[in-house]
Amino acid sequence: MNPQVGIIMGSDSDLTVMQPAADILKHFGIAFELTVVSAHRTPLRMVEYATKAKDRGLKVIIAGAGGAAHLPGMVASITPLPVIGVPVKSSNSIDGWDSVLSILQMPNGVPVATVALNAAKNAGLLAAQIIGTADEAISKKMTAYKAEMDKEVLGKVEKLKSSGWENQFDQ
Amino acid sequence: MNPQVGIIMGSDSDLTVMQPAADILKHFGIAFELTVVSAHRTPLRMVEYATKAKDRGLKVIIAGAGGAAHLPGMVASITPLPVIGVPVKSSNSIDGWDSVLSILQMPNGVPVATVALNAAKNAGLLAAQIIGTADEAISKKMTAYKAEMDKEVLGKVEKLKSSGWENQFDQ
Amino acid sequence: MNPQVGIIMGSDSDLTVMQPAADILKHFGIAFELTVVSAHRTPLRMVEYATKAKDRGLKVIIAGAGGAAHLPGMVASITPLPVIGVPVKSSNSIDGWDSVLSILQMPNGVPVATVALNAAKNAGLLAAQIIGTADEAISKKMTAYKAEMDKEVLGKVEKLKSSGWENQFDQ
Amino acid sequence: MNPQVGIIMGSDSDLTVMQPAADILKHFGIAFELTVVSAHRTPLRMVEYATKAKDRGLKVIIAGAGGAAHLPGMVASITPLPVIGVPVKSSNSIDGWDSVLSILQMPNGVPVATVALNAAKNAGLLAAQIIGTADEAISKKMTAYKAEMDKEVLGKVEKLKSSGWENQFDQ
Amino acid sequence: MNPQVGIIMGSDSDLTVMQPAADILKHFGIAFELTVVSAHRTPLRMVEYATKAKDRGLKVIIAGAGGAAHLPGMVASITPLPVIGVPVKSSNSIDGWDSVLSILQMPNGVPVATVALNAAKNAGLLAAQIIGTADEAISKKMTAYKAEMDKEVLGKVEKLKSSGWENQFDQ
Amino acid sequence: MNPQVGIIMGSDSDLTVMQPAADILKHFGIAFELTVVSAHRTPLRMVEYATKAKDRGLKVIIAGAGGAAHLPGMVASITPLPVIGVPVKSSNSIDGWDSVLSILQMPNGVPVATVALNAAKNAGLLAAQIIGTADEAISKKMTAYKAEMDKEVLGKVEKLKSSGWENQFDQ
Amino acid sequence: MNPQVGIIMGSDSDLTVMQPAADILKHFGIAFELTVVSAHRTPLRMVEYATKAKDRGLKVIIAGAGGAAHLPGMVASITPLPVIGVPVKSSNSIDGWDSVLSILQMPNGVPVATVALNAAKNAGLLAAQIIGTADEAISKKMTAYKAEMDKEVLGKVEKLKSSGWENQFDQ
Amino acid sequence: MNPQVGIIMGSDSDLTVMQPAADILKHFGIAFELTVVSAHRTPLRMVEYATKAKDRGLKVIIAGAGGAAHLPGMVASITPLPVIGVPVKSSNSIDGWDSVLSILQMPNGVPVATVALNAAKNAGLLAAQIIGTADEAISKKMTAYKAEMDKEVLGKVEKLKSSGWENQFDQ
Repeated sequence: MNPQVGIIMGSDSDLTVMQPAADILKHFGIAFELTVVSAHRTPLRMVEYATKAKDRGLKVIIAGAGGAAHLPGMVASITPLPVIGVPVKSSNSIDGWDSVLSILQMPNGVPVATVALNAAKNAGLLAAQIIGTADEAISKKMTAYKAEMDKEVLGKVEKLKSSGWENQFDQ
Repeated sequence: MNPQVGIIMGSDSDLTVMQPAADILKHFGIAFELTVVSAHRTPLRMVEYATKAKDRGLKVIIAGAGGAAHLPGMVASITPLPVIGVPVKSSNSIDGWDSVLSILQMPNGVPVATVALNAAKNAGLLAAQIIGTADEAISKKMTAYKAEMDKEVLGKVEKLKSSGWENQFDQ
Repeated sequence: MNPQVGIIMGSDSDLTVMQPAADILKHFGIAFELTVVSAHRTPLRMVEYATKAKDRGLKVIIAGAGGAAHLPGMVASITPLPVIGVPVKSSNSIDGWDSVLSILQMPNGVPVATVALNAAKNAGLLAAQIIGTADEAISKKMTAYKAEMDKEVLGKVEKLKSSGWENQFDQ
Repeated sequence: MNPQVGIIMGSDSDLTVMQPAADILKHFGIAFELTVVSAHRTPLRMVEYATKAKDRGLKVIIAGAGGAAHLPGMVASITPLPVIGVPVKSSNSIDGWDSVLSILQMPNGVPVATVALNAAKNAGLLAAQIIGTADEAISKKMTAYKAEMDKEVLGKVEKLKSSGWENQFDQ
Repeated sequence: MNPQVGIIMGSDSDLTVMQPAADILKHFGIAFELTVVSAHRTPLRMVEYATKAKDRGLKVIIAGAGGAAHLPGMVASITPLPVIGVPVKSSNSIDGWDSVLSILQMPNGVPVATVALNAAKNAGLLAAQIIGTADEAISKKMTAYKAEMDKEVLGKVEKLKSSGWENQFDQ
Repeated sequence: MNPQVGIIMGSDSDLTVMQPAADILKHFGIAFELTVVSAHRTPLRMVEYATKAKDRGLKVIIAGAGGAAHLPGMVASITPLPVIGVPVKSSNSIDGWDSVLSILQMPNGVPVATVALNAAKNAGLLAAQIIGTADEAISKKMTAYKAEMDKEVLGKVEKLKSSGWENQFDQ
Repeated sequence: MNPQVGIIMGSDSDLTVMQPAADILKHFGIAFELTVVSAHRTPLRMVEYATKAKDRGLKVIIAGAGGAAHLPGMVASITPLPVIGVPVKSSNSIDGWDSVLSILQMPNGVPVATVALNAAKNAGLLAAQIIGTADEAISKKMTAYKAEMDKEVLGKVEKLKSSGWENQFDQ
Repeated sequence: MNPQVGIIMGSDSDLTVMQPAADILKHFGIAFELTVVSAHRTPLRMVEYATKAKDRGLKVIIAGAGGAAHLPGMVASITPLPVIGVPVKSSNSIDGWDSVLSILQMPNGVPVATVALNAAKNAGLLAAQIIGTADEAISKKMTAYKAEMDKEVLGKVEKLKSSGWENQFDQ
């Protein structure tokens, strides 16, 4: 089965932050590949990756990077595929503002679908939602996933109740 | 033809900012609908819109809002569809930071594909890319659109050259 | 005794931050309830909670949330009750700015009474002050509480004095 | 009829920003007073105002101020009444951040119910909600006010529809 | 000897941050007093302190506070003496921005001489410089203090040199 | 009469912002001089100015600068006199943050008494307060100045009252 | 004469901001070229430009861009030449922070010599200084340029003096 | 061999942050010197250092400083050499913003080539690139250095592949 989603990151030090994207795609049964593509240290490899992505069968690219994070935007400038950007809060980042702004504030013509700081899990979910727009099985799994979250919260609600928090004062 | 993309905004005062999303979808020949759905002033309409969106045939939702911008995130909490958020720099906004952060920084489990401040045009392009993951005609138009941008820039390059900017000093 | 104040939070991980609100209400003898209501993971439960709050006898709602914190504003969009918002500095927050701005910067028509970052204690006091506008016993306790704070500071002043800090150099 | 709400501001130049608070209170039929009380230029008048507020029958104080905005917090330090703070974006303000932070970030023990930058209208609504916790007539007006907003938005939805925006492309 | 400088702080938890101001004044042989005066928890004590400060012989007041830091500005609103403000980075501060802005951004008419975040040492030096404008002995000590700093740096320069850093590569 | 205060600024374009400092000193009858001293374009003139300031009889220096504003801090590094820094919001400034931070955040050992953005008037008042620590006539004028501000506010209070604002609704 | 400096910008709308770089290079007699190279709309042209820059004889590249400004960093990732980045404050920029951070915060291994927001003039001067490290004639012109700035400031000092500002009060 | 690059820093506590600049210069075989020059504590030494730098044979100066970081800009105001500024995130810094802005935002006429927060390594590389504009051997080493980075990343790519990450799910 060909990978449908490419997960790329600027440095292998981003692997811990980016892994939840892979975990979510596994959970949804979506084939993916994961590799390191640095916009700044391997610019030509980046160009090649972006140029061939669509023809290799990828449908979505998830790109994570920190600091002056150019990887998502540069890949988006080359490929016609939707690119999801994950701002990574790297060391020496100025509180993450640098990666957020250099991924989010793309000029007209070249969008990057930006998710929250370090939110690789949400990048995986967004990729699944995109795949799900034409794959009803995935879309149903997404609905189920949301129901599961709902149930999980309700479980915590019950636990809070039974552990005596609610009404504990006014009885 | 049923709309594939729903463009919603918190207030009709956001219409000027959001219109380029509609323009792009027209350019790509993608059917869309456009309406006002306020998370704060019509919360139940918002819930209803999000709940029915998928069954009505929508594939992508573009939601624009300013200030404490809850519309994109709340719609995303209900629908399994991908939601694209457009932070709008409204009056009394704190330089746009409020809308950017309240759309972007969604918790794990509920992604919003955030684009740049006021970047409704990019929201439209991102929607087209998402539709294009399963619609080769749209995907080809996207490739053509990118080539057109490239050509447009090269036209400006030529104009700069012929108008004498380049090498004008050192000859 | 029916609860007069509802303390809700987006996640049970906010419990440590939110507990001081409950402690203050206990101190003032105000009946309250405490539970988890997630705007993003249980949106319909949130709508139901907000819709029924007033008829269940609640007078004030305290809502804490982090990141793109939509819970206080969404509850405020539905209920006619005053809603107090507590911005929680969650992990992956951008220094708390995201929760502060997405709670504070509500559009005209839907106020949220926002307190400082993580300031659940102040949320409890503000709820007591609101209850106190029509409950003279609570209002008197508030005056006493303020006198107690005053006394506590003066105790520290005395301790500083007797421990020799003041005038220690110039004698 | 004695005023129930005191609207105060640091300078008469804040009057334009603060007037919507008065307009809302008129709309709800809540008696109010409005005056200038400067924490920095008339500190003793400020102390006196805060000290006597409750005994004069006030139930809520709305205080607006810009820059290093100390008025809301200082009044809150003295009175047991709930104090609503309106950060005003004055000239020479650093984009409003100064007034927002110096009103919002009150220490434990002294809450200020902060609303959005320049959001005097919301301050008025919040005061009405607070009064409404013990005045069912006001509370019902609040519910009606919210229904009115809802209706107003739906009117705009209809206008957008009839003016041909929706489905205009795909027909 | 009467104290010439009053060092006050909003809370005894600020003592560690504020102590260097006292240390500097001792070093310069300037009599001072140090106590806790909370603008928010003991507002009337604060008013009294500020009102009497000049008549008690104080020449300069150093006031440290965190968060929505109103102490320096409120004291400055009452006393004709110069007031030096020390923004303290307290817990739950938003990175210190709140204390910096609520001390620095005072309105026209009421200056506070603000020093850097947590820079109580510089507050002490500034107080000494102010005293030194009319006390030649103190002014000479200040000149000596500066020469001492210069010497200290040169000592480090020598140490770096002798420890082989300089020219270590190119020999 | 020798000048007691030196007002310097980085550029003559800062003159409009800095003039209120001169106006205040005239009002208080304090002799001053005013000139342009650029840390970056005339560094040696700046060193000379700072080196000779005290021997020329100056007691206080007011230095205004914008952007990467080094003038106040560099002058303070050389002279033993108190230096008041006025952050100027110049064109191309990043909202004034650059001038505020590069004046305020001086390292230990070299304080600059920073006032609010563009607050040259407060710089003048602070200089007067410093002169006033040893000049009772100036100090009395300061007390009178504060009383005058108080009176001015009360005049506005009366005007608001008589123009019918107060109680206008509830009669 | 071959160009020694390449001035490139992401869009011809940046021309007004970037022109002063060209003006300075003309002033110093340094041959340059100026063209539009968009990282996002003409990524392959950008790669080609950067790849050939050194062999074409360029010694320094000045690259200006706004928003998520990737041009300077991407060019720097490919060429061994020093790259000077000019953050441009474009419309819809978030106050320029986006362009500043996405140019400045480059990862280890790929520096960009960043100048102030919109400071194309300084980019030109920095290029001249770099050329001047091996071209004594340019270096001497730089020294002269600095002397000229000094003289210009002194001219303003004289004008201020003769126009009566200095000592005008105390005579 | 005379040093070509001078590495200076405001305090010996910056040594750990600045050392990578020295390491890079060693790697490239470029002679350098390293010393402490404080703009604020040894202003005259700073003036002297900057004044003599060019005549002593230096070609580039790297200056690191934290907080209100004036060293790079002040040195640049005196010397005709290119000055590279390294913003250091010192303790009590406001998240590094102060050092970044006070180095970057230099006025027209006096550029500082600013690198990322704490990015002394990049300062070293930039110095090497500048030297390389007239020293082909250094320029070739720079090209080799870039190739080495590329190779290093590819090594990590291989390691990720062989360690089973890629395609691990979809086989």
